[in-house]
Amino acid sequence: MEAAVANGPKKVDDKRNGGVIDGPTNPMVTPLLTDLYQFTMAYAYWKAGKHDERAVFDLYFRKNPFGGEYTIFAGLEDCIRFVAHFNFTEDEIAFVRATLPPSCEDSFFDYLRGLDCSDIEIYSISEGSVVFPKVPLLRVEGPVAVVQLLETPFVNLINYASLVATNAARHRFVAGKSKLLLEFGLRRAQGPDGGISASKYCYMGGFDATSNVAAGRLFGIPLRGTHSHAFVSSFLSPDEILEKSLCSCDGSTVCEDFVSWVQTWLSKLKRSKLLAGIFGETNQSELAAFMSYALAFPNNFLALVDTYDVVRSGIPNFCAVALALNDLGYKAQGIRLDSGDLAYLSCEARKFFHSIETEFGVPDFGRTSITASNDLNEETLDDLNKQGHEVDAFGIGTHLVTCYAQPALGVVFKLVEINNQPRIKLSEDVSKVSIPCKKRCYRLYGKEGYPLVDIMTGENEPSPKVGERILCRHPFNESKRAYVVPQKVEELLKCYWSGSSDRRREELPPIKEIRDRCIDQLDRMRPDHMRRLNPTPYKVSVSAKLYDFIHFLWLNEAPVGELQ
Amino acid sequence: MEAAVANGPKKVDDKRNGGVIDGPTNPMVTPLLTDLYQFTMAYAYWKAGKHDERAVFDLYFRKNPFGGEYTIFAGLEDCIRFVAHFNFTEDEIAFVRATLPPSCEDSFFDYLRGLDCSDIEIYSISEGSVVFPKVPLLRVEGPVAVVQLLETPFVNLINYASLVATNAARHRFVAGKSKLLLEFGLRRAQGPDGGISASKYCYMGGFDATSNVAAGRLFGIPLRGTHSHAFVSSFLSPDEILEKSLCSCDGSTVCEDFVSWVQTWLSKLKRSKLLAGIFGETNQSELAAFMSYALAFPNNFLALVDTYDVVRSGIPNFCAVALALNDLGYKAQGIRLDSGDLAYLSCEARKFFHSIETEFGVPDFGRTSITASNDLNEETLDDLNKQGHEVDAFGIGTHLVTCYAQPALGVVFKLVEINNQPRIKLSEDVSKVSIPCKKRCYRLYGKEGYPLVDIMTGENEPSPKVGERILCRHPFNESKRAYVVPQKVEELLKCYWSGSSDRRREELPPIKEIRDRCIDQLDRMRPDHMRRLNPTPYKVSVSAKLYDFIHFLWLNEAPVGELQ
Repeated sequence: MEAAVANGPKKVDDKRNGGVIDGPTNPMVTPLLTDLYQFTMAYAYWKAGKHDERAVFDLYFRKNPFGGEYTIFAGLEDCIRFVAHFNFTEDEIAFVRATLPPSCEDSFFDYLRGLDCSDIEIYSISEGSVVFPKVPLLRVEGPVAVVQLLETPFVNLINYASLVATNAARHRFVAGKSKLLLEFGLRRAQGPDGGISASKYCYMGGFDATSNVAAGRLFGIPLRGTHSHAFVSSFLSPDEILEKSLCSCDGSTVCEDFVSWVQTWLSKLKRSKLLAGIFGETNQSELAAFMSYALAFPNNFLALVDTYDVVRSGIPNFCAVALALNDLGYKAQGIRLDSGDLAYLSCEARKFFHSIETEFGVPDFGRTSITASNDLNEETLDDLNKQGHEVDAFGIGTHLVTCYAQPALGVVFKLVEINNQPRIKLSEDVSKVSIPCKKRCYRLYGKEGYPLVDIMTGENEPSPKVGERILCRHPFNESKRAYVVPQKVEELLKCYWSGSSDRRREELPPIKEIRDRCIDQLDRMRPDHMRRLNPTPYKVSVSAKLYDFIHFLWLNEAPVGELQ
Repeated sequence: MEAAVANGPKKVDDKRNGGVIDGPTNPMVTPLLTDLYQFTMAYAYWKAGKHDERAVFDLYFRKNPFGGEYTIFAGLEDCIRFVAHFNFTEDEIAFVRATLPPSCEDSFFDYLRGLDCSDIEIYSISEGSVVFPKVPLLRVEGPVAVVQLLETPFVNLINYASLVATNAARHRFVAGKSKLLLEFGLRRAQGPDGGISASKYCYMGGFDATSNVAAGRLFGIPLRGTHSHAFVSSFLSPDEILEKSLCSCDGSTVCEDFVSWVQTWLSKLKRSKLLAGIFGETNQSELAAFMSYALAFPNNFLALVDTYDVVRSGIPNFCAVALALNDLGYKAQGIRLDSGDLAYLSCEARKFFHSIETEFGVPDFGRTSITASNDLNEETLDDLNKQGHEVDAFGIGTHLVTCYAQPALGVVFKLVEINNQPRIKLSEDVSKVSIPCKKRCYRLYGKEGYPLVDIMTGENEPSPKVGERILCRHPFNESKRAYVVPQKVEELLKCYWSGSSDRRREELPPIKEIRDRCIDQLDRMRPDHMRRLNPTPYKVSVSAKLYDFIHFLWLNEAPVGELQ
C-alpha cells in the first residue's frame, strides 16, 4: 500500500527479489547524517590499514520504555533504504575533506568516493515484532569503517520509530480494541520529520488513522479531520450564510432553506419534554459554523462542540443540525470534545442523544459517535475507563508523538566481533556490559503457545530444537537459569541486506502487513507481560556456552588492580 | 553563514530586499504537511463564500517550558521559507481531491491550484528573542482559508525549534559561560529532522558545536568528534600497528617507532614518584587504539578513556601517548569521560595531569582538556557544579535534543479577528481564553536597563512612550495592574512577510547573528527571572483599553444559563 515518496526518491534495483528499493523517506537522510567521529574513526582505521577488517556490530536497547516489559521494533525499512543508496556525492566528500584536519591524506577521500554497502550484511528481526532488551534487533557485518559510518543513521532511524510505535501500542492496549484511535500530533511533534515518522509508526503500532496529510499520502494511512475552534469562531451569525439550499441525500428533493430548518429543530429541542431546561440561547456564531460545515459536508458532519459551552450550546447546536440533516436522509457523524471533563461530558452527550432518539424517534441517534481529544495519554485513558465514559474515538497528539512519558529509547550499536575475534565492552554498570560474539537469536515458545524466553547463542552452536531441553542462562547473573523444552523455535534474525552477494534476502513488506504482524504478536503475548502496572519481565537469556565465553572474555579484558 | 541546502532547495527572488529566499530546510515541508482538517475547513469556507475574508491569527504559547520563566523564540526563518514557496503541485491537488469526499466541487481544486501567500502578511518577533507566554510570536493576516492551511506547519516548525533552543539556553546557563558545550544528540533525536533541527537550534540557544555532520554542512555550525568505544575495542594489541613512524610537528625529525616511544613513556609513568601504585598493566587494546588515533590525528588527539577502566587504564594510556606526541612537538587535546562518577574522575584526571606537569616538567600538561558526556542534563550539570569538577567541555545528547524534561511546547494558533471583527475563544480554564483583536506588542524597559513588562494593545492605540506613565493590566485578573514609566520602548512585532505588497520587510539574518541576539538578550534579563529554582515570572500585560474590550467580548459570547 505504500505510495512512492513525493517528488520521487532515488530507486535501486533489487534484482534478486525482482523489486526496487526506494531511497530513504526523508531525503535529508544522507551519509552525512552521522556523527563527525564516524569520519575521524574511518580515517584512523584507514590510516592504520584496518578499515576493511570484517566487523560485526549489534544494535540493541537495554531497557524497555514507559515502565513496560515490551518494545515494538520499527525503523528497519528506512535503514535498508538508506543502505541501498549509500554513497557519497562529490560535494559531500568536499565537505568532509574541509572538515577533517588538513593533514588527512588525499587517498582517503578516494576511498570514500568508492564506498557503498555492497560488502555489508544485515540480519534483522522483522519490523513490527515485539522485542526485548539485549537481544540484537540488527546484526550488521562488514568492513569496520563502513559499518561505523552506518551507526548514527541506523540508531537515529530505529530509536524514535521503535519508541513511538511502542507508545502507540501501549495507548491501544489501554483504550481497548473497540475504540478508534486517531493520531493528531503533527503540530507538537519534534520537527517535520518527527511528525511524519510519528504518523507512520503510530499506525504501525495499532492506531487507525492520522490527521497528517503528508503521511497519509506517503504511507497510505487513513486520514481524519473536521474543523477547529477557529472555524467556529470565524462565523458571527447565521445571517452570514447566503447559500442555504441543500439537496437531499438521494437527490430527490431540495431543502431551500436549511438554515431555517435547523432553527426550527433547535426550537423543538428547547421545548422538548426530555431536554427542557438543559439549555437556553445557544451561541449563534457556533450554530452558523455548524450549519456551514454541514452544507459543505452533509455526509461527513462532525462538529467540535466545546468552543463556547458544550452542554448549553455545542451539543444542542450539533443536534439541531444533525436532525435537519437526518430529515434529508443524511447521517451525522458525531461530535468532538476537546476540553473539560471528558468522562462527564461524553455521558451527558450520550444521554442527550438517547433522549432525542426516544422523543423524536430517530433510529440510532443515541449511538452518534463521540470523539475526545485534549492532552490524552495512557493515564488519562485509564482514568476515563475507571470513571466510565461514552467516547467512541480518541484523538491523541502531544503525549503520543513526543513520547512525553519517555522521549528517548536508549538504542546502542556495539562492536561484538572483529576479524573473527569476539569483543566486549566493559562497564562498572553491569547492565552496560555488551554481549560479545556474532550471535544467533531464537524465541522459544511454551505449551500454551506463548513466547517463553529469547535465547542468544554463538553463531556456530546448534540451534535449539522443538522438544529438546535446553539451558537458558541470564547473561550476567550466574544464579538465574532455567531449563526449557520449547514447543516451537523461531529464529529471530533474518537476512534483510546481503550487499552484492547472492544470498536471498527478505522482502520489505508493506506497512499494512507490518502493522498486522505487530497487532498479532501483541495478541500472542502472555498477559502478565503486557499489563500496565508491575508487568512480569520477559526472560532474555544466553546459551551455557555463550555464558561461559562472556565471562572468560570479561576477566581477560578487565585490568587487574594492584593492592598497595 | 548559512550554506545552501544540499541538493539545492527551490529559491524565490525577494526583489524588495535584493535577496533570495531558500525553500524550507527539509524538502518534506510542503503544503500537505498539515492536518486534514485545514483542508476540510478550507472547503467549508470556500463553499460558504468566506474563504477570502481577511483573518488575523496569533501564534503564541501559554506557559514557559522546563519550569522556567522564559522561552527562546526560534523557527521563524523556516516559516518564512515555507510561505515563500507555498503552492500546490498537481499531484498534491490530486491527492487532496482523492481524500476529500467525492461530493466536493471541482472549482475548489481550481481555487487551490491558484493559491499562494501573496496576500499574506506576517509580523513576528525576531528569531532568537527571549519571549513570554500569551504575547504573539507571529501575527498572521490574510484570507482565512489560506492562513488556516499555514497553521499546522507553522506550529510544527516553531514548537520544537523554540523548545530545544530554550533547553540549550538553560543548559548553557547552568554550565556557565566558560565551558564548551557540544551537542551530541543526533542518534537519540526524534527522527532525522529532529536531529538536524536540534543541532541548529541548540547552536542558536548558545551551544558551541555539534557532532552532526549534516547540520554542520547545512548551517555552518562548528563540528566536533573523535572516536567511540567500538574504535577502542576494535584493536587487539599494539602488534597490529604496522606503520609506526610519525613525523615531528615542525617536520624536522621522524620518530621511526612511535609505538615503542609510547611504551617507554608508559613504563616511566608506572615507575614515577607521584603516580606509583595508581595503575599496573593497562589495557593493551586500548593503548593500541590510542596510538593509532594519534598516528592518524597527531594534532587532534582526544581519547575516550573509559572503555576498560578510567584510572587504571584509560588515563595512563592517554598520558603515555600524549607525552610521546609532546616530544614530537604536538599538543594532545585531551580526554573524554563517558561513564562513572564524572566529578570524581575529572578531578582524578586533573591530579594525574598536574603530577605529570610537575614531575616531568611538561608545561601546561595540567591544563589538558577534559570532556564529559553520558546522560547529562540541567540537573546533573548542577550537581557536578555543587560537587566540584574539572570538566572543560560537556557533550550533551539525549536530554538536550529530546527535551527529556518536557518534550513539547504548547504553541497554539488562534483566530483573533475576522473581517475587522475581534474574536475570542472561551474556555472553562481561564488560561486558555484567547486575547482578541489585531494587536501591537511592546517591551518596556526600566531604569536599570532590564525589560520590565511586555504589553499588548489594540492596533490603533497610541504606542507607549518613553517617560510617559502607562497602566499595564493582567489580561484576566482585574486586581493585577501596575503603572510603568518606560525608559525604553521596543516594538516587538516586525514585518517579515508582506506577500506581493510593497511593504518593506525584515531580512532573515544568518544563524550566527540570531545566536548572538539570543545570547545578548539572555544576558540582559533581570537575574531573578533566569534562576533555576523559583524564578520570578516576567510580567505580560494588556492596555487598559484592550482589557476592557476583552471582558466586554467575553460576556457577549458566553451563553447565559437559565436557572430552573
